[in-house]
Amino acid sequence: MLKTGVIGYGYWGPNIVRGFSASEGSAVKAVCDSNPQALKKVKLLYPQVEVCSNPSDLIDRKDVDVVAIVTPVSTHFALAKAALENGKHIFVEKPFTASIEEAEILIALAQKKNLIIMVDHTFIFTGAVRKIKELVDNGTLGDIYYYDSTRVNLGLFQSDVNVVWDLAPHDFSIIDYVIKNKPLTVTAQGVDHFNRGHENIAYITVYFENNMLAHLNLNWLSPVKIRATLIGGQKKMLVWNDLEADEKIKIYDRGVSVDDKEGIYKRLIDYRSGDMWAPLIDRTEALKVELEYFIDCISHNKKPINDGESGLRVVKLLTAAHKSLKEKGTPVSV
Amino acid sequence: MLKTGVIGYGYWGPNIVRGFSASEGSAVKAVCDSNPQALKKVKLLYPQVEVCSNPSDLIDRKDVDVVAIVTPVSTHFALAKAALENGKHIFVEKPFTASIEEAEILIALAQKKNLIIMVDHTFIFTGAVRKIKELVDNGTLGDIYYYDSTRVNLGLFQSDVNVVWDLAPHDFSIIDYVIKNKPLTVTAQGVDHFNRGHENIAYITVYFENNMLAHLNLNWLSPVKIRATLIGGQKKMLVWNDLEADEKIKIYDRGVSVDDKEGIYKRLIDYRSGDMWAPLIDRTEALKVELEYFIDCISHNKKPINDGESGLRVVKLLTAAHKSLKEKGTPVSV
Amino acid sequence: MLKTGVIGYGYWGPNIVRGFSASEGSAVKAVCDSNPQALKKVKLLYPQVEVCSNPSDLIDRKDVDVVAIVTPVSTHFALAKAALENGKHIFVEKPFTASIEEAEILIALAQKKNLIIMVDHTFIFTGAVRKIKELVDNGTLGDIYYYDSTRVNLGLFQSDVNVVWDLAPHDFSIIDYVIKNKPLTVTAQGVDHFNRGHENIAYITVYFENNMLAHLNLNWLSPVKIRATLIGGQKKMLVWNDLEADEKIKIYDRGVSVDDKEGIYKRLIDYRSGDMWAPLIDRTEALKVELEYFIDCISHNKKPINDGESGLRVVKLLTAAHKSLKEKGTPVSV
Amino acid sequence: MLKTGVIGYGYWGPNIVRGFSASEGSAVKAVCDSNPQALKKVKLLYPQVEVCSNPSDLIDRKDVDVVAIVTPVSTHFALAKAALENGKHIFVEKPFTASIEEAEILIALAQKKNLIIMVDHTFIFTGAVRKIKELVDNGTLGDIYYYDSTRVNLGLFQSDVNVVWDLAPHDFSIIDYVIKNKPLTVTAQGVDHFNRGHENIAYITVYFENNMLAHLNLNWLSPVKIRATLIGGQKKMLVWNDLEADEKIKIYDRGVSVDDKEGIYKRLIDYRSGDMWAPLIDRTEALKVELEYFIDCISHNKKPINDGESGLRVVKLLTAAHKSLKEKGTPVSV
Repeated sequence: MLKTGVIGYGYWGPNIVRGFSASEGSAVKAVCDSNPQALKKVKLLYPQVEVCSNPSDLIDRKDVDVVAIVTPVSTHFALAKAALENGKHIFVEKPFTASIEEAEILIALAQKKNLIIMVDHTFIFTGAVRKIKELVDNGTLGDIYYYDSTRVNLGLFQSDVNVVWDLAPHDFSIIDYVIKNKPLTVTAQGVDHFNRGHENIAYITVYFENNMLAHLNLNWLSPVKIRATLIGGQKKMLVWNDLEADEKIKIYDRGVSVDDKEGIYKRLIDYRSGDMWAPLIDRTEALKVELEYFIDCISHNKKPINDGESGLRVVKLLTAAHKSLKEKGTPVSV
Repeated sequence: MLKTGVIGYGYWGPNIVRGFSASEGSAVKAVCDSNPQALKKVKLLYPQVEVCSNPSDLIDRKDVDVVAIVTPVSTHFALAKAALENGKHIFVEKPFTASIEEAEILIALAQKKNLIIMVDHTFIFTGAVRKIKELVDNGTLGDIYYYDSTRVNLGLFQSDVNVVWDLAPHDFSIIDYVIKNKPLTVTAQGVDHFNRGHENIAYITVYFENNMLAHLNLNWLSPVKIRATLIGGQKKMLVWNDLEADEKIKIYDRGVSVDDKEGIYKRLIDYRSGDMWAPLIDRTEALKVELEYFIDCISHNKKPINDGESGLRVVKLLTAAHKSLKEKGTPVSV
Repeated sequence: MLKTGVIGYGYWGPNIVRGFSASEGSAVKAVCDSNPQALKKVKLLYPQVEVCSNPSDLIDRKDVDVVAIVTPVSTHFALAKAALENGKHIFVEKPFTASIEEAEILIALAQKKNLIIMVDHTFIFTGAVRKIKELVDNGTLGDIYYYDSTRVNLGLFQSDVNVVWDLAPHDFSIIDYVIKNKPLTVTAQGVDHFNRGHENIAYITVYFENNMLAHLNLNWLSPVKIRATLIGGQKKMLVWNDLEADEKIKIYDRGVSVDDKEGIYKRLIDYRSGDMWAPLIDRTEALKVELEYFIDCISHNKKPINDGESGLRVVKLLTAAHKSLKEKGTPVSV
Repeated sequence: MLKTGVIGYGYWGPNIVRGFSASEGSAVKAVCDSNPQALKKVKLLYPQVEVCSNPSDLIDRKDVDVVAIVTPVSTHFALAKAALENGKHIFVEKPFTASIEEAEILIALAQKKNLIIMVDHTFIFTGAVRKIKELVDNGTLGDIYYYDSTRVNLGLFQSDVNVVWDLAPHDFSIIDYVIKNKPLTVTAQGVDHFNRGHENIAYITVYFENNMLAHLNLNWLSPVKIRATLIGGQKKMLVWNDLEADEKIKIYDRGVSVDDKEGIYKRLIDYRSGDMWAPLIDRTEALKVELEYFIDCISHNKKPINDGESGLRVVKLLTAAHKSLKEKGTPVSV
């Protein structure tokens, strides 16, 4: 039975507390938040859980094996470092850290202490992304040409980060999980329309090895909500519409083949158009899958796929995108 | 009665010949194409029209007032120059020319000879774009924050140009028509997946004055066809889905307002969500509207909105995008 | 403070208990169910609520003003009668009763005892239906020509009633609320594909005064879920798609007008096609609106719009449809 | 080379003339229409075709093997009879005839004269319907439970027939082609909202052998155009959306199975939900496929699938539906 303490009971924290409470392999011992209203809600729903307003009180608890850090990214490093130093495994909200250096320090510390870091890349535990991973790994799609995501809606404007740090971690963590090619350079363009110091619209393009391209369209100021990703493969192509109730993933037997007979300047293009199919997608809640996997990793001392290294790779992409954004789109190496 | 000669009877030429034939104010006198099969088709459908295979034969004809040039872009300049020098008005397929210099020479020549140039920016004559123009001009949308277009499908791979020169002229001509802000810098990223020397996927971002941003997602390798544009305005927001039979344009009374009371670091965001409406769109064929406008411009010696200057502005954007694309996304000034 | 007792904690009962608990004007005193597992869940979530397995224990309670009956329809009459006789107001799940006679007895009893009956026609408290009611009442749609609903999905096959008694109460209660014309005759066709004694697919048509027609397409065996209603009015037409997140209701300025000049045999038809608009719909949970209205009706001794009479009118339509269904579609007067 | 004469050059006639002209195995010799404007158009497009205003002139022509009758249904019988008596094969617009008797006389006459009748059930030659036929015939769908079609739009109000005779022939001809069960009884409900003597909205239900049910929702007064058909099979279910550009047909591995172990009163229902797939549909124009098949039938003296018998079966269903409609939905045997 994994005993957890959760720091942060704002937007996402309640899901983490519910998840660790509902899982058979874990229990929540304590919750920490600086907001007394939040703690009141915890007591109402979970009378047996202890609450506190000072994170170090929670981190110091003997009856806690794992500290879940569900706070703004600027606070991750200090909390995670304290927890690791106190011998706790950590579960950290995404993005992992606010800088590459912070991530590297935490990874080294966890390794030294033989502790496990899991970064909450929830999306890679959805049925949809697990299906995409399967279709890439078993060669159904063939070599991947591009990953093109549109992730737009009206709001929620974050007060402390721009749209890149808010929305790009979703796609970067999925790309990190699904795509085998290594990222090379990043460009990002965007604008802060409201003079808040944080861009509310941004476009990111990442060049990968082997001519793979990834593109993210991120927008807090769209009249409609879109969560659509196109993945073009050499053999098949895929559309993932996460807002569809059914048929989230459609696989198209479509593509292009090039006939080289006539030499490079006369390459003939053949278009292929066949059936489409939409595989059944597992609907188990992603967070439930993720937390059970976390418990299993700790129980068996296994390295999670979404460990600190994975969190670091995402932070590297975010950092590069952020730098390019501030330089009006100038390419930045990863 | 405007007497026209049409050079090029390939993919789009038949529409131009049909358009000038069907209009009450014009007639087609001659058609020129290097392909004898194409000329055979012309004779079958229009027995009274003369055909030739040498463009100068057509350009030399005394009974032709207007030369329509519906050929690959690399040939536009020489044909257009010869026609203008021979005292003909010209109607030129988009993009206007293959370079800025070519466009400037043609504009100067037409001005000197008092001849009219119309660049075939067909899209700005669609009911949808005319409605968008109206909504921008009458202030319904308010200040424009961004123009975000997705224009993707499977094929047709062009043999002589990349996806930017093929698809971006549509959006650039619409932006040139609708948006009052001036473009400042362009970045473009893309890949040629088939080693053909021409990118088949490209993302273009244009920074404009007043924090306006335009973005184009162009892709010949998409499993699905998408023609969707989001336009975010300060007062209202618009979605234009050109593949919808009805309701091509939806206007959302949605947006964000910023409350400055607490100072720049504590700006409060208010979200506004109201009705949506889809105005009735005129369904008259765009080409018909355009050609009647062209005839009217020549009859009354009026400068078309899609004149050589407009064609030049589009070519400037294409040239900047192309340059950035070849430099992996480095920003290029317009 | 309205003190309620709830009988039935199966599929819908938990929502009723939650609703009466969450409302400021009411509290749940006791819950009754024959299933001990259900009662266990109640105690877990609402430790202060008393539970029992015998309905008469609940009905007899002095501290209960209102009995909510959330059980299969065959049991409604006996429970409702006992509750009314004991001086309790009742809130009854739809359909109100299994027969016209039962409904009439309950109505008379409530009237005699000066008690209030509310039938849980939840749908008429949704933002969508309230908006439709408003558009009909203020004349926006004009005279109503037809109401055409498709309500299909895969499952859930009910064990005790057919698809008519399961799904038609939704539409009949909406029609009863929105449409002013009186129903005249009903026909219904359907089939029991699995030899269970209950039709799993049914089509109902109701003729109303003034040439109004209503049609219901009900199906437990559809591969896709559809909740779509067309309402044709003389002035405007409306599409209500309840599965849309936004834009549930679209109003079309479309219609037909008939020119009588040439006499009845040469009536000219004019088609009108104008804008479409989608009004903002209130998203407050329907059950919350309904229960607050119920509390208000009891506090101020007001007759609810969804009172026993309304429940009776729905039961009359169900009974007529059921009779026609068993006679292969023969028309039955209401 | 089949030599054809076409009577009727109104809405659909031009397609028939174009089709017979374009086919390699046929030529159009003459076109007949009472409207001089229509004949003028014919001469413009087909200078070599002769025109006349009197049908008997066309029917008498020696150089005509086939008479295509593309006129209102009330005129089919007289024209078809004269053509058959003159030794011509006939191609007749749907519905075949205005009554069962007329159809029977024509069938007998054609048989006696060894001539071929083809009724223009165009829809069964679409790629979509041929795919559905294939999926039914090869057992993919299993036993068919129901066929449920929605065929609604705004207009075109026909002046001489009601919505049943206008729209139902499409579905009835498809059902006749695809479904093996025999129809038993028909009910139809509908209303004439404009006092024109012809219903503009109608619902038809047909009971078939083996508990199969067909339903048609027909409406000239719908704000939106819908062409959607659900086909429920014991093994798989199908949705055909004819307005989709791609993916017209989606096949769902969904259904219900009944476990009989516990006896009839406790049958357990199991729901099955699996993948969906959309097969590639042949996009060849249906009329082209049909006319080539017609030419082939005549050349090889083969009985068409859409022969007079098929036309008669459709007319029987129309007649029964019409009778039920006039009797407010009373069931009528086929």
